[in-house]
Amino acid sequence: MTTIAVINPNTTASMTATIAHAARLVAGADTEIVPITSSMGPASIEGYYDEAFAVPGLLYELTLAERDGAQAAIIACFDDTGLDAARAMLSIPVIGICEAAMVTAAFIAKRFTVVTTMERSRVPIEELAHRYGMAARARIRAADVPVLSLEDPNSDARQKLRAEIGRAIADDRAEAIVLGCAGMADLVKSFSAEFGLPVIDGVGAAVKHAEALVALGLRTSKQGPYAPPLAKRYDGALAQFAPA
Amino acid sequence: MTTIAVINPNTTASMTATIAHAARLVAGADTEIVPITSSMGPASIEGYYDEAFAVPGLLYELTLAERDGAQAAIIACFDDTGLDAARAMLSIPVIGICEAAMVTAAFIAKRFTVVTTMERSRVPIEELAHRYGMAARARIRAADVPVLSLEDPNSDARQKLRAEIGRAIADDRAEAIVLGCAGMADLVKSFSAEFGLPVIDGVGAAVKHAEALVALGLRTSKQGPYAPPLAKRYDGALAQFAPA
Amino acid sequence: MTTIAVINPNTTASMTATIAHAARLVAGADTEIVPITSSMGPASIEGYYDEAFAVPGLLYELTLAERDGAQAAIIACFDDTGLDAARAMLSIPVIGICEAAMVTAAFIAKRFTVVTTMERSRVPIEELAHRYGMAARARIRAADVPVLSLEDPNSDARQKLRAEIGRAIADDRAEAIVLGCAGMADLVKSFSAEFGLPVIDGVGAAVKHAEALVALGLRTSKQGPYAPPLAKRYDGALAQFAPA
Amino acid sequence: MTTIAVINPNTTASMTATIAHAARLVAGADTEIVPITSSMGPASIEGYYDEAFAVPGLLYELTLAERDGAQAAIIACFDDTGLDAARAMLSIPVIGICEAAMVTAAFIAKRFTVVTTMERSRVPIEELAHRYGMAARARIRAADVPVLSLEDPNSDARQKLRAEIGRAIADDRAEAIVLGCAGMADLVKSFSAEFGLPVIDGVGAAVKHAEALVALGLRTSKQGPYAPPLAKRYDGALAQFAPA
Amino acid sequence: MTTIAVINPNTTASMTATIAHAARLVAGADTEIVPITSSMGPASIEGYYDEAFAVPGLLYELTLAERDGAQAAIIACFDDTGLDAARAMLSIPVIGICEAAMVTAAFIAKRFTVVTTMERSRVPIEELAHRYGMAARARIRAADVPVLSLEDPNSDARQKLRAEIGRAIADDRAEAIVLGCAGMADLVKSFSAEFGLPVIDGVGAAVKHAEALVALGLRTSKQGPYAPPLAKRYDGALAQFAPA
Amino acid sequence: MTTIAVINPNTTASMTATIAHAARLVAGADTEIVPITSSMGPASIEGYYDEAFAVPGLLYELTLAERDGAQAAIIACFDDTGLDAARAMLSIPVIGICEAAMVTAAFIAKRFTVVTTMERSRVPIEELAHRYGMAARARIRAADVPVLSLEDPNSDARQKLRAEIGRAIADDRAEAIVLGCAGMADLVKSFSAEFGLPVIDGVGAAVKHAEALVALGLRTSKQGPYAPPLAKRYDGALAQFAPA
Repeated sequence: MTTIAVINPNTTASMTATIAHAARLVAGADTEIVPITSSMGPASIEGYYDEAFAVPGLLYELTLAERDGAQAAIIACFDDTGLDAARAMLSIPVIGICEAAMVTAAFIAKRFTVVTTMERSRVPIEELAHRYGMAARARIRAADVPVLSLEDPNSDARQKLRAEIGRAIADDRAEAIVLGCAGMADLVKSFSAEFGLPVIDGVGAAVKHAEALVALGLRTSKQGPYAPPLAKRYDGALAQFAPA
Repeated sequence: MTTIAVINPNTTASMTATIAHAARLVAGADTEIVPITSSMGPASIEGYYDEAFAVPGLLYELTLAERDGAQAAIIACFDDTGLDAARAMLSIPVIGICEAAMVTAAFIAKRFTVVTTMERSRVPIEELAHRYGMAARARIRAADVPVLSLEDPNSDARQKLRAEIGRAIADDRAEAIVLGCAGMADLVKSFSAEFGLPVIDGVGAAVKHAEALVALGLRTSKQGPYAPPLAKRYDGALAQFAPA
Repeated sequence: MTTIAVINPNTTASMTATIAHAARLVAGADTEIVPITSSMGPASIEGYYDEAFAVPGLLYELTLAERDGAQAAIIACFDDTGLDAARAMLSIPVIGICEAAMVTAAFIAKRFTVVTTMERSRVPIEELAHRYGMAARARIRAADVPVLSLEDPNSDARQKLRAEIGRAIADDRAEAIVLGCAGMADLVKSFSAEFGLPVIDGVGAAVKHAEALVALGLRTSKQGPYAPPLAKRYDGALAQFAPA
Repeated sequence: MTTIAVINPNTTASMTATIAHAARLVAGADTEIVPITSSMGPASIEGYYDEAFAVPGLLYELTLAERDGAQAAIIACFDDTGLDAARAMLSIPVIGICEAAMVTAAFIAKRFTVVTTMERSRVPIEELAHRYGMAARARIRAADVPVLSLEDPNSDARQKLRAEIGRAIADDRAEAIVLGCAGMADLVKSFSAEFGLPVIDGVGAAVKHAEALVALGLRTSKQGPYAPPLAKRYDGALAQFAPA
Repeated sequence: MTTIAVINPNTTASMTATIAHAARLVAGADTEIVPITSSMGPASIEGYYDEAFAVPGLLYELTLAERDGAQAAIIACFDDTGLDAARAMLSIPVIGICEAAMVTAAFIAKRFTVVTTMERSRVPIEELAHRYGMAARARIRAADVPVLSLEDPNSDARQKLRAEIGRAIADDRAEAIVLGCAGMADLVKSFSAEFGLPVIDGVGAAVKHAEALVALGLRTSKQGPYAPPLAKRYDGALAQFAPA
Repeated sequence: MTTIAVINPNTTASMTATIAHAARLVAGADTEIVPITSSMGPASIEGYYDEAFAVPGLLYELTLAERDGAQAAIIACFDDTGLDAARAMLSIPVIGICEAAMVTAAFIAKRFTVVTTMERSRVPIEELAHRYGMAARARIRAADVPVLSLEDPNSDARQKLRAEIGRAIADDRAEAIVLGCAGMADLVKSFSAEFGLPVIDGVGAAVKHAEALVALGLRTSKQGPYAPPLAKRYDGALAQFAPA
């Protein structure tokens, strides 16, 4: 049995349900998905500020999850919020859904386009693409849909995403599409069928990478930048959430 | 049941046994590993020339494997020999062990070192690192051991590899080690224990990535560079191995 | 009168005193330096985890400082902790001391070396160099001195830094040295005299860049990734520190 | 007398005639051009798969040509098919027409556009541009013309190429045009006159580079990745074409 | 008192007046701006040739300025004409307005667009962006206005610049605009107000960077590429302008 | 008959003789080499300042050479002094010896090392390598020999160069050596024999590239950055050397 903690660093439980559903859809028979909604931070992560405020809650929850026996952790926000800090904090491997999705896309396409939610998230994802060595392969587009509108069946979010995917195919000559938000995880099948090319969701991709690392017996290296935090004093309201 | 064809493009059957063993060690309960030894090409791949002569046999075998029901294919040579051609030829996803190993290392370490066999393979692997977006993260070292000496229990290959890993840790400050040859697949456990940091073998990593792509229902995009070969005349001794 | 808030995201007040002294040494006659010690987070920032836990306190203090009339803000930690989030949150310009130091070094040298505290901070600063377009020009070295040992007159920190600078000059052919920690701000003069080449401290450099932006009437662009946070619900212990 | 073998790795003899004509047009008075049509492989090379199947025949022919006294060799396919393998196999210098054309363009223009045949070849040529250090200078466009249509006087290939060159000048602000297929070698003069800017054909460029290397007494370095293949067993249908 | 020499390497005095005005507008109370019009070279610098002919006069004037007590120097041409030579020649710090403007833009925006005068200057500024580590962040556009038309109140230069800025915002999603010519220094305020985003002029930015370097006590490193010229014979008409 | 002007931008005639000899050694039977010693500028070019002072004389001489019928021009200084300006000024193609040497090395080796004269020239040549797309392939070393010592049979220059080449082979694993100064052109043969790997001199390489461009009928593109200088006023001592 492999236990994978999947944290939604947005504090919106309905989004966690979407994420958990997508995770379980692809998880192996022996994998238990443990979905977690962060209880500290913004209702939705849209930009650098929200990211920063989401991280301590995310780290705290992941620390608990590791103590409770999780063998791998997934951060289910396409900004890969707090990924490096989580890797330093935990011993178990940690996967971000942006890195997972891009790596997966790169196995089946030379050039792909990420379609994300809001314009303000476009450049941050371009920076991630650069960091993951995908700058020459990935184009990033924003469909101008707020994150939480993806949870709203009456919004025009799906329609806007469709239009942007159409532009990606026509103008970028995208060979594959990456869905750039955890809240889009349920759209893989329909979009893939509609557009006739691979559509990749980071949540599903991350589940498989997490299972892989566990099966391979690999954990985050503790030599260098991911060395565990040194024991020290933490002050203020966050101190209670810091490592003992 | 997931069927994964694992081809050894070196025509040396004992190496295929090592590879098959490593693959089965990490494969899921529902995964069938189908090991294939290429029957056309060099006994071992050491440099650009050997690579080129190994590819047609490799493509031919993989075409047969796909017809026989394989759902994913792995090219078990660290040069990722013929990877792009195989992706264009087949519909099922194809994984190279170099790309698989580097991607896996990048999930658990910022900087890692590949230890490969011979000096002549060092620059080709540097080129792969560049292509996979890992140029700033991966260092490549050669231990000066011929590929087939890895099959020989009396050679000093293990000792030379050990020495080179030691230099990688001391001089490159490597956070993880990638074994740069399919023939080293059985050394992961002992080296990992000996050096106290993650050691990654591409064969195992590729098996998990292949399983992941199958589980996610993803196949190589046929838009753009991986479009299937056009029907045309093929001449000469290879014609019988070309697509009908 | 130009008012510049200088926040020490480490919660150690003695370090703030060092920083404030270095800032005032170079500030213009019309500049008021307002030093702030963050009250929430780790006593010293050493690695990704500490960074993450320091950011919410830092953002909260900077929000107060802007309300109180600061015209520019400096984040006095060489990891440029929380820089993007602060730029998104605030209207006034925000300067990180790593970016400020590297930019300043680049005006007077083609190649320079950063000497930072601990090995675990080396790769994060390499990543910053990459992000600031300095990857080909900056080398990063760690002297293996804990951040707080810089505050301790009895430690061997100065000696270790000196040795590392010597290696940077001999081995990297460094044309200038950047001190890679806010806590080293008082060493500029003596090291510059001792080694006979420019030595740059990020705190001083950031003060001058902050004054410059104020004088030029420039504020962070609110188009794109630094657009102000959207109004939304924030949950948990941090909610009280989030924007109203 | 300098003897240069020019191999067409497409097995189509009429294309070889076009190539030979272009080569002789620019060859020095003392240069003998020896055109060779590969007898093993695809009738035309369009994509990764065709490339892979063309290489063994190409290497075999070049080995014979070297034995027969050729002092340099040219691979007349814009994918630079098998270039690294040929350099490892032979002692005489080997030139690919893509590398030759890009290097030549770079002597007379800062930015240039390659116009190639089919969309599936666009990304492979982008990868070559990256490998040759031209990523920031070269744009690649496909005119959607099959390779063999260039041999057909009734096709609309020329018209499509013209239209694409027009877009390159208008949209890319191309300073020069590189013709991205050996089969276009006869169009240099007319396109250059029509568009009023330098038009470069790789075959001609490669002839002059080959002459240059012979005149300079330079041969492929045998230190490192181009070291000659090691003696070993080759199996199967290709064994008869491998080095003795 | 800080004395900053600002040289206009164009020999057009009216442009120097525009530059001097812009410089004084942002200079500190204690800063004396010493504007210099080069007496040797082209009336306006438009392209590589003009640059080359402007440099000796520029170097000669800056040498005199340093002898007369200038503590920093600014080269007020957006090509950063002669910047490296001036840094090698002088002991005082030297700032180019392109580098100053880009560095300043990077403190307040992730992505920005430079709007310069003529198409022939576009690629040279792209090269500078690359050299300053800004290739991924800066787009360069030319408005097709001759440099000296900026001095002519009856020209349509302003209108053309406005149109190009509009395109930069719509098509590049520019977060900030950099004015790509010293002769545009007086347009900052009006364009900034009109377009509602930061507009940066290199002259003003350079003044503040120059003041900063003086306040920090930093001078160009004389280790390595900026080592002072060796004593040697200089021949011909320029000899009288060379270092004694 | 092809006439190639080879200008030595150093004003030292004995160096021109070395250059002319090297050029004629490899020139075709139909090529006339016209060696020119610049009469304006430094006796030797060692660093950015000397470069800047050498350019106007170089441009003037090349303008005269073009008027006198030269069909191509070579700038025989390894800094590629004034290359872009010359390309803009002239219609005939212009070749720099650094670009020519690197391009030639890249045809026969994956990795090579440039051995130049003085440490102050190392970083400028690194910048050229970057500009020519060779940053990942070329290492630059300085042997600490003044340029004019190469003309002095009693100096230890040859010995120092030999030692540095030895280090390049041992430490860089150089596959080929590029001689990084026009004054070393006569050392190709002996060093190549001594070290057993290709040694490349830029003067010879440039002659062959110049012949190639003439034979191909290619001239510098006049679209974009190399557009001819606009008619305008030039002031001061240089005015007499500027275009009419």
